[in-house]
Amino acid sequence: MKRLAILGSTGSIGQQTLDVVRSYLDRFQVIALAAGGNVELLARQVKEFQPKLVAVGSTASAERLPGDGYEFSSLEEIASHPHVDLLVVAISGKAGLGPTLAAIKAGKSIALATKEALVMAGEIVTAEARRSGAQILPIDSEPSAIWQCLRGEGRSIARLILTASGGPFRQLTWDELAAVTPEQALNHPTWKMGKKITIDSATMMNKGFEVIEAHWLFDVPSENIEVAIHPQSIVHSFVEFVDGSVKAELSLPDMRLPIQYALFYPERPHSELPRLDIANMGPLTFEPPDLGKFPCLRLALEAGRKGGTYPAVLAAADEIGVELFLQRRIRFVDIARVVEEALERHQSISHPTLEQIMAADAWARESVLRMESRR
Amino acid sequence: MKRLAILGSTGSIGQQTLDVVRSYLDRFQVIALAAGGNVELLARQVKEFQPKLVAVGSTASAERLPGDGYEFSSLEEIASHPHVDLLVVAISGKAGLGPTLAAIKAGKSIALATKEALVMAGEIVTAEARRSGAQILPIDSEPSAIWQCLRGEGRSIARLILTASGGPFRQLTWDELAAVTPEQALNHPTWKMGKKITIDSATMMNKGFEVIEAHWLFDVPSENIEVAIHPQSIVHSFVEFVDGSVKAELSLPDMRLPIQYALFYPERPHSELPRLDIANMGPLTFEPPDLGKFPCLRLALEAGRKGGTYPAVLAAADEIGVELFLQRRIRFVDIARVVEEALERHQSISHPTLEQIMAADAWARESVLRMESRR
Repeated sequence: MKRLAILGSTGSIGQQTLDVVRSYLDRFQVIALAAGGNVELLARQVKEFQPKLVAVGSTASAERLPGDGYEFSSLEEIASHPHVDLLVVAISGKAGLGPTLAAIKAGKSIALATKEALVMAGEIVTAEARRSGAQILPIDSEPSAIWQCLRGEGRSIARLILTASGGPFRQLTWDELAAVTPEQALNHPTWKMGKKITIDSATMMNKGFEVIEAHWLFDVPSENIEVAIHPQSIVHSFVEFVDGSVKAELSLPDMRLPIQYALFYPERPHSELPRLDIANMGPLTFEPPDLGKFPCLRLALEAGRKGGTYPAVLAAADEIGVELFLQRRIRFVDIARVVEEALERHQSISHPTLEQIMAADAWARESVLRMESRR
Repeated sequence: MKRLAILGSTGSIGQQTLDVVRSYLDRFQVIALAAGGNVELLARQVKEFQPKLVAVGSTASAERLPGDGYEFSSLEEIASHPHVDLLVVAISGKAGLGPTLAAIKAGKSIALATKEALVMAGEIVTAEARRSGAQILPIDSEPSAIWQCLRGEGRSIARLILTASGGPFRQLTWDELAAVTPEQALNHPTWKMGKKITIDSATMMNKGFEVIEAHWLFDVPSENIEVAIHPQSIVHSFVEFVDGSVKAELSLPDMRLPIQYALFYPERPHSELPRLDIANMGPLTFEPPDLGKFPCLRLALEAGRKGGTYPAVLAAADEIGVELFLQRRIRFVDIARVVEEALERHQSISHPTLEQIMAADAWARESVLRMESRR
């Protein structure tokens, strides 16, 4: 029995993680659940999985949780708790960073869905993991694909090619992009996900985060990581090796596959997930991304290459930009503008400490809000 | 320095193996070369690579080979010679079987291009390899792709999906197939190969051989091995795992890649081979094979599933059928007919000995020739 803690259990990844657990109840025990505001769902999850530890966003939420048999705890306590074998970090945004670091310092394996931890503090997180021997297991489709392709391979990577569906707006003109509404942007063609990541997919900022994440996860220079638009979302990524051979990982789009892969790693479990019918799957197409139409991807690639505190500012400014767009205070195309302006105003620090990263994050949020309130 | 012996050095695979050796002269030493009738080319190869042992098809050929510093030898002697680290078996047809078995009994690694060895005697060859610890390293694109996808994976294969270009006649009707000339059949759209294998690709018999070969190489039941037509020849094969994840290996069509992979295994060498440009490679398409139009594939799948001496008869009858077609004595579509008639007349023996396999082979050849001479 592997003992799991799931941070962000009521989100999309958290719910699908529990779906996987339901299919293999003899293999996993849920030790801890943590969620933010969705108390009704968390209450049902607590009843079903009987965790020993529970974390919620507020005291008010805690009071609404029924039942007993568990203790309230903080995210950091759960992350480093001795009974936890594998920590699933699926809290969106920078809230995942603290517990991720706590778990890594405690030498625990983490299944990481939260990109921000590596985007903001990849250097610190991976250095701590090397020190403690903690394993970071990705549970998003693209990094999982790369991780699977690297099984049994040594340090012979020439390039990584991350695929991107291109989002719902691949075919739009710039003027059409400017008119996109939150409702349109929240309707992703292949993946059903939370709001923030759905908007980030539509702007392709999410793909930029994945490039930065892949740089840290797989220790590949950013300039050797490319993006290919692949609207069918069947090939989840490619690895090119130094000998010229390329490997890819494919499946029907279903987040339960990479989640299950991380939970069971290194085993591959027998699974009832729907199978890809290769001989009948239809054409697979690939094209280069249009960085002119998707400036968020360009900004992320640049911030990733420059490093320092730029990626933290990128992530923070994007988080505020997406919020402002969802509140209809800025247009879809303005998300990239506010991010670009924040990056331009920022004085980056090389090899920053965690405090300096947090300060850059706070500065970027405040700076974007101040600038936009003046417009 | 890895010491190589190359059986079939003047054939397509043999020449490309020497191309790879030329790119890494500090890593490989050519200990032995063996060829059939192409004495001029063999003489140039002997001069360039200075092998210690040479085998040729006939005494007359031997007398035409200039120079000294080497000894004449038999294929079996070369195969089991103590100075040989890796034996490349690239002789087409059943002539590869004897040396393959000799090398395996001597516990040597073999890089195997000759499909017939495993098609005819897969059970015996793989049992001997298990006994002696000899490794069989495939050097054809499709089995190499599968082998690469299986790196670092345990026994978790659900299915193998071999890709096939579909050959030059994928779009023809049956009547058009009947009128195909040897010249047309020898003109393969993506791969430049020897005559026998080019015709076998056009009839798709070659893909059937690969299914039988993959069954023995990877210990996967024949019913879990499928074929998908993929005219672009970019994806060289797929492996589906028990968890639902699929891996593929891709590259531009270039035999030097799988050859190099086998020669260097387990290392991946830095290579100057042309790279696949994923974002600009054009659509990849897949479709089920049409077993009605390509009965050779159907016959091979059936013979592989039935086992016994059927695959030996399949291979032998096909070899004669292809010869008769190249001599314009039968039509393109008659290759399948003569194979089918031979299989129907054959009394198979389960778990045959090598002698029984050789007897089935001889019977099939003689039987096809006798039947066709009566027509």
